[in-house]
Amino acid sequence: MVNGIYKPFWLDGESLVIIDQTKLPFSYETMRLITPEDAISAIKTMNVRGAGVIGNVGAFGVYLAAIAYEGNLKKIKSIAQQIRVARPTAVNLTWAVDRVIKVLESHNSSQNSGKDFISIARQEAIKICDEDVLNSAKIGLFGCDRLQEISNRKSGKPVNVLTHCNAGWLAIVDSGSALAPIYEARDRGIDIHVWVDETRPRNQGAFLTAWELQQAGIKHTIIADNTGGLLMQYGMVDMCIVGADRVTRKGDVINKIGTYLKALAANDNNVPFYVALPSSTFDFDLIDGIKEVEIETRNPDEVLYIQGINDRGTLTKVRIAPESSQAINYGFDITPNHLITGLITEKGICKANQEAIAQTFL
Amino acid sequence: MVNGIYKPFWLDGESLVIIDQTKLPFSYETMRLITPEDAISAIKTMNVRGAGVIGNVGAFGVYLAAIAYEGNLKKIKSIAQQIRVARPTAVNLTWAVDRVIKVLESHNSSQNSGKDFISIARQEAIKICDEDVLNSAKIGLFGCDRLQEISNRKSGKPVNVLTHCNAGWLAIVDSGSALAPIYEARDRGIDIHVWVDETRPRNQGAFLTAWELQQAGIKHTIIADNTGGLLMQYGMVDMCIVGADRVTRKGDVINKIGTYLKALAANDNNVPFYVALPSSTFDFDLIDGIKEVEIETRNPDEVLYIQGINDRGTLTKVRIAPESSQAINYGFDITPNHLITGLITEKGICKANQEAIAQTFL
Repeated sequence: MVNGIYKPFWLDGESLVIIDQTKLPFSYETMRLITPEDAISAIKTMNVRGAGVIGNVGAFGVYLAAIAYEGNLKKIKSIAQQIRVARPTAVNLTWAVDRVIKVLESHNSSQNSGKDFISIARQEAIKICDEDVLNSAKIGLFGCDRLQEISNRKSGKPVNVLTHCNAGWLAIVDSGSALAPIYEARDRGIDIHVWVDETRPRNQGAFLTAWELQQAGIKHTIIADNTGGLLMQYGMVDMCIVGADRVTRKGDVINKIGTYLKALAANDNNVPFYVALPSSTFDFDLIDGIKEVEIETRNPDEVLYIQGINDRGTLTKVRIAPESSQAINYGFDITPNHLITGLITEKGICKANQEAIAQTFL
Repeated sequence: MVNGIYKPFWLDGESLVIIDQTKLPFSYETMRLITPEDAISAIKTMNVRGAGVIGNVGAFGVYLAAIAYEGNLKKIKSIAQQIRVARPTAVNLTWAVDRVIKVLESHNSSQNSGKDFISIARQEAIKICDEDVLNSAKIGLFGCDRLQEISNRKSGKPVNVLTHCNAGWLAIVDSGSALAPIYEARDRGIDIHVWVDETRPRNQGAFLTAWELQQAGIKHTIIADNTGGLLMQYGMVDMCIVGADRVTRKGDVINKIGTYLKALAANDNNVPFYVALPSSTFDFDLIDGIKEVEIETRNPDEVLYIQGINDRGTLTKVRIAPESSQAINYGFDITPNHLITGLITEKGICKANQEAIAQTFL
């Protein structure tokens, strides 16, 4: 039992402390979430992001609600409705919030006090996170076998992995999804090098993945999102691994905008393209990603402005477009299942098709 | 006869004035090129860029050399060697420099004075630019016919064109290559809207294409380079048009990094993908783009830093990656001919295959 201590957030008394991901890699700051509203705000403004971690913080948000409303289930459920829609895309958020609520409901008898509810919510949120930790480790093991095969085939020469966005431990406790096999490879002594898509517009690759890899001492090179196709044409990518925010019944993958373009390039150059996810990322209500998913649009300012460190070391926001030009900011795209070599899950590597998914997960 | 006055640069006495493209869209500044070294530096530091304009400034560089060396052909040829390699990728640069040198050589008799050489170089450089102006206009006419067809099919609803990088009049005098059909469409009253890929790392889309379109009053929306695939999946792109830096004998296109990814997405979604170019962009010495072309790598700082306007209106450079992370910066990629619907040239629209290209241009 981990007792509620995870890499990107941890319980401290009756509050949840999170690493403020909007400040990385420029400064390491933490934030304390005390109320359910704090949790909603942290998810909305992306102080936390990443499919799994959003779900975790959502679950702890229900715990914070239980404290705030002294275990009044009706009030908890009402604010839980707001938590579960704080971000629309990652299925894990609604899944995790609903799971805590369901457990509370199952204990809704006169024998349980408000205090019991608080404790039950806390334990269920911890349970979700502990499961994620375990699943993340398993994803690492299964995915790393593929990296080991490539390493053997290349007689130990560096294995070049391309990843998009951040699906490391900042996104899924405690090793990530896409980065879990990479961390495992480092532990096994496999020589590995990661191509890090900067991942415009929010640069989660350059900001978060590069930071994680640097902390872990893993070789990596940041590239503009435009670059991956050429690297694959040149044989400089052995494997792609990305995370997922939502995966349909037939294996279509909703993930950070730009994932689809890399999957097309991988397919065109016979580079294996894997998606790593805990099975909580499946949305079995969906079949066809393109027809059924409405993609989240975010503030166009994320495209028109960018944040970085100026030459005096100050965090500075600059506009990178003409004054009166407009932008549009779609957050995700859909990678059709036929472009995906396999889904790396806690239950092993599964083909991205309806039969295989049903057989393994339903 | 235009007398050496073009939109992105113009003769002024014995010097060439250029718009400093590194300052756009934040400020409009000009630079005066007096010596051949000025021309080399302007090309190297990308005060001018864009396949055609690099060639034009290269040609005028030979004229400036003729002035500097008072028509001494040996000395002119020596510095011309440096001009032609100031940037490696665009074939137009060597082509244009060699053409001016060739004309000088053909006049290399005792009857011609140094002064004659200066005048001959000037006239040939002007001739190259005047041809580009004419070719650019023709590309606009031919390409616009396709936009007209789409507009008719959509009963006059806006035609959505996606473009990558800048292939407007800042790149090819005086209407551009990829943007020429769009300017022509505006003149014909076709309702048009342009998706502008920001084009990391140097952001020529957000900085230059958006600026050009804004000046021309053409509706446009800036998008992260990752976005085009989703827009095509959603049927929000009617046609892609990009420029080219070099096109092989069989129609493989070397263009700004990221072009290939958009071509893959267009192909996957049945969106027509056109490449617009004057025929001087062909490199008939090359057949297979991927095997035979060495792609230019540029300073990694172009990936790690970005320039924009801060909240006090000052042009500011910020670092957008962890302090110790590395980057690599490939400038171009290769779009294989089978992904290309057609090449829009001054001789009409040509299929991107060896037979059609030979028939039209050889």
